[in-house]
Amino acid sequence: MVPFCPKIPLMKYEKDGPVSIAYGLTLVHYLFEYAPKRAKILYLHPKLKEGESRDKLIALAKEYKVQIVTDSLKIFSGAKEATYAAAVFEKEYAPLSSSNHIVLVEPSNMGNLGTIMRTMGAYGLKDLALVGPTADPYDPKTVRASMGALFRLNIARFNTIGDYLAIHGDHHLYPFMLQAKTDLEDVKIAEPYSLVFGNEAKGLPEEFLNMGTPLKIRQSDLVDSLNLDNAVSIAVYRFQTMKKE
Amino acid sequence: MVPFCPKIPLMKYEKDGPVSIAYGLTLVHYLFEYAPKRAKILYLHPKLKEGESRDKLIALAKEYKVQIVTDSLKIFSGAKEATYAAAVFEKEYAPLSSSNHIVLVEPSNMGNLGTIMRTMGAYGLKDLALVGPTADPYDPKTVRASMGALFRLNIARFNTIGDYLAIHGDHHLYPFMLQAKTDLEDVKIAEPYSLVFGNEAKGLPEEFLNMGTPLKIRQSDLVDSLNLDNAVSIAVYRFQTMKKE
Repeated sequence: MVPFCPKIPLMKYEKDGPVSIAYGLTLVHYLFEYAPKRAKILYLHPKLKEGESRDKLIALAKEYKVQIVTDSLKIFSGAKEATYAAAVFEKEYAPLSSSNHIVLVEPSNMGNLGTIMRTMGAYGLKDLALVGPTADPYDPKTVRASMGALFRLNIARFNTIGDYLAIHGDHHLYPFMLQAKTDLEDVKIAEPYSLVFGNEAKGLPEEFLNMGTPLKIRQSDLVDSLNLDNAVSIAVYRFQTMKKE
Repeated sequence: MVPFCPKIPLMKYEKDGPVSIAYGLTLVHYLFEYAPKRAKILYLHPKLKEGESRDKLIALAKEYKVQIVTDSLKIFSGAKEATYAAAVFEKEYAPLSSSNHIVLVEPSNMGNLGTIMRTMGAYGLKDLALVGPTADPYDPKTVRASMGALFRLNIARFNTIGDYLAIHGDHHLYPFMLQAKTDLEDVKIAEPYSLVFGNEAKGLPEEFLNMGTPLKIRQSDLVDSLNLDNAVSIAVYRFQTMKKE
């Protein structure tokens, strides 16, 4: 691991660096709630009003020995919207648990990736596998779209689906493909499961038709396909709802 | 209506103007397929290769008497990604049909709005009501996120939900709210229906608890809520799937 140097505050996000930035009071609060040990520097905007929210963040930063910066505007120039708090935090990749997984093969869009994390949070899924070249799960844009759900996930990267299966071969694969024969509504759920989705433009390679139980999401019109994060949310909703029925 | 002046090509999108811009070969093809009469100017990048795609667009432009510009790069500077075709087209607001509707109250995010249009396209829904202040349905960002589905929709704006109901009072309202008592899975569908969703941050005002049949989407954790377009996609999927069961 690249060592982290807290004396040199990073002002600009670097894709290959060891840290990322959470912008906004809500995200920073989630960081301290779910992954306080990964917080490294807390930035409070000089214009952030005194009050409960500010006091709580300062107390948390002190508790977790996080450097506090209150006299710098520089980091806020990287925010997409006006915001009064930001935090530099360590990126983390962690082994996945034996519970149910979401597996994304070559996802290319950071907004989608973040929104998928958010949906996982809403349905209590904790494990995300990223296979092959992937959009950066720690780009501040992804972090923002995740609405903080990212701080509660195990995120692991694999070069190939073979590498993933070598470790998680006990998981039942459900690849989502337009060419699949089984309708999502007719699936019988085997746990632990892995819901597998392909790239936004290309979908999954054909080889996935021979893995596990390929599923299709019923649509009325194949001219218009679903956006990746919408396909994931429908799939996750149905799996989590059917389990409880 | 503001008159359209085809002699003065618009290079920059104007929110209050009469036209918008579709960027990219795919979107431009959809424009000519679904709303050719709204096309006003076709821009082909000087570097667009000769071939079937280019020939087809030129033939369509000639058929629909659309001005063709092949020697200007200016419009392409407004595109988010490198692209070889663009088209200026007329914005249109149209009365809704008597079929099922999606009703968005104060949606604020253009990406969400476009993705919702795309989901509507995938499920054959044709009518979109926008109530109150709304993200611009014709911003090029929305157009792009819709993947062209926008050219097949009737889009209507209403100042208040009262204005909407004055015309579409025969529709059964299903407002989606975290506070609702009925689970989406338990709903009995009455047609024609209107699936109603609130603003990304605020949701729907409480008064909607007294309108039609408020529904909630089952989640495991209310800390993480669903992104608006994911909530819409789950709702549309379930309504369209249950109808056919």
